[in-house]
Amino acid sequence: MTSAQTVADPLVQTVRAQVWLGGTDFEERTWPAPDLGPGEALAAVDLATVCGSDLHTVSGRRHGPHPGILGHESVGRIVAVGTQPPSVFEIDAAAAGEAETAVRQRPAQVGDRVVWGVTVGCGTCPRCLAGRTAKCLYLRKTGHEPIDSSWPLSGGYATHVHVLPGLPLVVVPEHVPDGPAAMSACALATVMACVEAAGGDLQGWRLLVVGAGMLGLCAVAVARARGAFVQVSDPDPVRREQAAALGALSRETDSGPVDVVIELSGAIPGIETGLAALDIGGVLVLAGSVAPRGTVGIDPEHVVRAHLRIVGVHNYEPRHLAQAVAFLAGPGAGIDWSPFIAEPVGLADTRAAVLEPNGWLRRSVAPTPHSSPASTAAR
Amino acid sequence: MTSAQTVADPLVQTVRAQVWLGGTDFEERTWPAPDLGPGEALAAVDLATVCGSDLHTVSGRRHGPHPGILGHESVGRIVAVGTQPPSVFEIDAAAAGEAETAVRQRPAQVGDRVVWGVTVGCGTCPRCLAGRTAKCLYLRKTGHEPIDSSWPLSGGYATHVHVLPGLPLVVVPEHVPDGPAAMSACALATVMACVEAAGGDLQGWRLLVVGAGMLGLCAVAVARARGAFVQVSDPDPVRREQAAALGALSRETDSGPVDVVIELSGAIPGIETGLAALDIGGVLVLAGSVAPRGTVGIDPEHVVRAHLRIVGVHNYEPRHLAQAVAFLAGPGAGIDWSPFIAEPVGLADTRAAVLEPNGWLRRSVAPTPHSSPASTAAR
Repeated sequence: MTSAQTVADPLVQTVRAQVWLGGTDFEERTWPAPDLGPGEALAAVDLATVCGSDLHTVSGRRHGPHPGILGHESVGRIVAVGTQPPSVFEIDAAAAGEAETAVRQRPAQVGDRVVWGVTVGCGTCPRCLAGRTAKCLYLRKTGHEPIDSSWPLSGGYATHVHVLPGLPLVVVPEHVPDGPAAMSACALATVMACVEAAGGDLQGWRLLVVGAGMLGLCAVAVARARGAFVQVSDPDPVRREQAAALGALSRETDSGPVDVVIELSGAIPGIETGLAALDIGGVLVLAGSVAPRGTVGIDPEHVVRAHLRIVGVHNYEPRHLAQAVAFLAGPGAGIDWSPFIAEPVGLADTRAAVLEPNGWLRRSVAPTPHSSPASTAAR
Repeated sequence: MTSAQTVADPLVQTVRAQVWLGGTDFEERTWPAPDLGPGEALAAVDLATVCGSDLHTVSGRRHGPHPGILGHESVGRIVAVGTQPPSVFEIDAAAAGEAETAVRQRPAQVGDRVVWGVTVGCGTCPRCLAGRTAKCLYLRKTGHEPIDSSWPLSGGYATHVHVLPGLPLVVVPEHVPDGPAAMSACALATVMACVEAAGGDLQGWRLLVVGAGMLGLCAVAVARARGAFVQVSDPDPVRREQAAALGALSRETDSGPVDVVIELSGAIPGIETGLAALDIGGVLVLAGSVAPRGTVGIDPEHVVRAHLRIVGVHNYEPRHLAQAVAFLAGPGAGIDWSPFIAEPVGLADTRAAVLEPNGWLRRSVAPTPHSSPASTAAR
């Protein structure tokens, strides 16, 4: 650590991480704590949940640069900031129960409990200037950078993460458990982007969620809280039951048309199910298709005559992460996530957590001993 | 005519029309002038342009109820109103040169020069209440109703049209020639709906228009007036030249990505061209696909990762007709439409005008002798 940083914990001299070497190989390595430039910070990781995409990466179904530190759903605490601290979004606690967007910005402080985003935009390229930072021309992604890059300490399967300028930070109220807080950084925030893409407040809307994995359950929870009538489609009866526990009806063949479909399965039949369910003026939000699965045949005359919209969503903007945390702190505070998010394993067991979901929608890794349970509902 | 109407021209005792009998057969018939209920009016048709869809109907490529009076692009004058006149939209002439939406509503008056819309919504069904009157559950369409229906005098190939409550009426300033005024009721107003669906003001946007028929030329004209960089794709070199005259460059293979595609060809290769042209965050507006042409294969992963939107547009709302007239009166006032819209034939020659476009994008029918040329630019 250099003089350019405020040292919160003089014991933080090193960072340990489980480095993915490619294939299914992991190895623990240690780095000196990084120098912190202006707008940077060091966050200690309390919990990192294991997104399904990490399993896809490790199993070779999607490409990932390596060796590198995976993990892009994490919650932790700021333990050091550079001379110029980064900004954090903070939810207005008084308003969180009613609105999800009462958010203010302030400088990060040592001790802040935070989640951080998946993407770092440069802030100056045409896409960033157009408000599409998730598609920055010079994009860097949390838990997706190789260790020989300019951002080796990006992943959550580590004791600490190096917070770069442009990485969204949101303060997490203490009553939100670690598990949903961590998961919000990818699954729930992406769902918030999907809801925005649907183009309305969802109140009274008929909504179909296709695919009841972690994102599907988040979509059900958010849509129910906003007053939508929610159906779910998933071939797995266990997942349908989990969705039902959050308030979704199973989609039946005679369930009638819907206003919005949020497609999270990525499967071609799932997309076809969604398209067929749409009423006049309906919106199909595609977010599950993040791997090659072939093409879907679409009848353009039907799209035209039925005034359909098809919208692709990938990753999200900083406001969606703030909305996700606000949901957990407010309308979603009563949800019991424990059936979906496993109790954590230690850092040394990262490989098992990534490779063996064992039926959990999220396994989790706690790099340092901590007291907050991963998934329990707020008490 | 009954006592419930204000008689403008006591000579209007009858309505003559060219009735489409099915196939390629037409026949002139005469009706007594209709009784006018509250919110109704009688409009004398000065000019009706021949939309390509009428040719499709007469040639059997799309279904049309018959016998009936075709023609859904017309301009004329109010010659009688019921005891409660319908409303008209009127452009604020002072603002028309700058904005396209400075519109007020007032009761129709005998003598008003007007265009009328293609759809009549009931105003009370869930779709109408949701602002989607073009998809009213009890929709009636100008020039698409059989003569044994509740709206026999709906079509423009007639001396008069019976204006029903809910049929949008827009006052046309005198400096707008009959041809573009009539054409605005379908082609140009639909383009206004496409532009709205693109989701922005187009200023500085890169736009590709696929299909350079009448709608394509309208799209080029509107987009150029709004400051877009406009390319056009059409296999016909004559049409490309016509589009070039309005300010569009021809799309080349190395033309680079675009922000918006307005697809008006309805051809599957046209849709594929449009999809392939989109930049990150791009919007494909589909409006040309109004007949069965098979399916288009879409890669959902590309839609997701590139944040694409695909939006279907069919018909339009009343505001789009007002925007179309405002465009003709203001930013589009200098456009010479004479290369695209033929000088009119008489009512008796309707069949030839519908069946033999002879290379014109619009032929036209003038049911009564009149002085305004069909297509000349404003002087």
